[in-house]
Amino acid sequence: MTLDEIRDYLRAEFPQVFIEEDIVVSAAEGGFARMSLRPGWRHQRPGGIVSGPTLMMLADAAGYAALLSLGANAKMAVTTNLNVSFMRGASAAAPIQQEARVIKPGRRLSVILAEAMDPDGKVLAHTTMTYAMPES
Amino acid sequence: MTLDEIRDYLRAEFPQVFIEEDIVVSAAEGGFARMSLRPGWRHQRPGGIVSGPTLMMLADAAGYAALLSLGANAKMAVTTNLNVSFMRGASAAAPIQQEARVIKPGRRLSVILAEAMDPDGKVLAHTTMTYAMPES
Amino acid sequence: MTLDEIRDYLRAEFPQVFIEEDIVVSAAEGGFARMSLRPGWRHQRPGGIVSGPTLMMLADAAGYAALLSLGANAKMAVTTNLNVSFMRGASAAAPIQQEARVIKPGRRLSVILAEAMDPDGKVLAHTTMTYAMPES
Amino acid sequence: MTLDEIRDYLRAEFPQVFIEEDIVVSAAEGGFARMSLRPGWRHQRPGGIVSGPTLMMLADAAGYAALLSLGANAKMAVTTNLNVSFMRGASAAAPIQQEARVIKPGRRLSVILAEAMDPDGKVLAHTTMTYAMPES
Repeated sequence: MTLDEIRDYLRAEFPQVFIEEDIVVSAAEGGFARMSLRPGWRHQRPGGIVSGPTLMMLADAAGYAALLSLGANAKMAVTTNLNVSFMRGASAAAPIQQEARVIKPGRRLSVILAEAMDPDGKVLAHTTMTYAMPES
Repeated sequence: MTLDEIRDYLRAEFPQVFIEEDIVVSAAEGGFARMSLRPGWRHQRPGGIVSGPTLMMLADAAGYAALLSLGANAKMAVTTNLNVSFMRGASAAAPIQQEARVIKPGRRLSVILAEAMDPDGKVLAHTTMTYAMPES
Repeated sequence: MTLDEIRDYLRAEFPQVFIEEDIVVSAAEGGFARMSLRPGWRHQRPGGIVSGPTLMMLADAAGYAALLSLGANAKMAVTTNLNVSFMRGASAAAPIQQEARVIKPGRRLSVILAEAMDPDGKVLAHTTMTYAMPES
Repeated sequence: MTLDEIRDYLRAEFPQVFIEEDIVVSAAEGGFARMSLRPGWRHQRPGGIVSGPTLMMLADAAGYAALLSLGANAKMAVTTNLNVSFMRGASAAAPIQQEARVIKPGRRLSVILAEAMDPDGKVLAHTTMTYAMPES
């Protein structure tokens, strides 16, 4: 799927994430995806920090877009495991950049790494995900 | 902190989670917490399934409440690692039950297990979390 | 497979683990397994502590035995993900008890929880594993 | 600590790993470490495959060396969480290359990524580790 096809598909099928959460997908090609989120009130925690669940949601969304860039059969892929390490508090005043890369595209399982970054490129969270691919 | 104190604190400080997400905390005592979420539109995925990020958010919320039940100094605890295994798709038509238990309360790090269940008690997701405790 | 069949199979096919490492399998039935290891020199770290890799090896071994107790087709299952939280240092002077339970037996993926304990029942490490089941 | 100091320290204090397991440390500087293991009988599984516990042991060893390269106070650091995704079976006929990089050196917690590779550079396992640093 191309970047435009992925954008259209995600906004049509997952409006809760890609419209409501104000996520912009800027790249999705060859197993790699990049997107950004402008934190709103619901993404915040006391002290103006971006919440952990926001970063987990972003990682999962980027992982899915990265998989879609390898083929439309990933539409029915599902997350089976997600492991996230939170490394720094992230200010909710600036956009969060999220990247994901498929490091092991598989027939049955695919493994994806993802990082959330602040505008200076500092890593906020590192995530490893496994997706179960649909049976053919 | 008592159950009532925890409820009041969570609703006052984390209204994005405990008011907006429609979560009801039914137990929080001795390192254990139980809560339920009635899935709304934003928690759904195509096919009427509860989203993975919803289950991760719930696990994190329950882990925090479980920690608070051991003492108010956990207010400033932060999640450093979260690992979730998704086991079954969950229908968004029924409430999700979420439990969490502190299996290792620590001075520096605490370890918590959490499970999301459907109304029949089937486990939907199993989560292990580590929280960094505030420095005294 | 029965306990005796599992013991014989593990000692015949994995002598590096079940003979060399001095592991005794005491239970394996219905998706649950229990075994113990008497720590030797190679399992130790400075200070007479059992090493982390020893506990990971034990968790993996117990998870495999737990799967085998559900059926011999698990022989060809492989670990795809393992997440371990270390909670306490373990003295190498006493045997380590290791338990594992299949909480989600699956056709494609199975999820297993495991705990290592000292002789007092204190949990030393908590592990979550995913095994990919062989294709039929 | 320099590469030579790290090699000497690891062989003196952890002979079970760095002598018995036949591991050669080829780099350790600036939070990065590289080592290789020549698989022996005890590292094998049926079919001539390197065992999962061998890859976990290697990841942990490389993570520790990477931390030491940032300062000798890491000597007393301990692994608190390790998450590994196994991606491909590894032939025991060739050496395993293992790399680790500290992506978040912390005063209390450090986060490390590690990869095991075959001689062609194909990733066999991806590991994320958290180490608790000693209290000063």
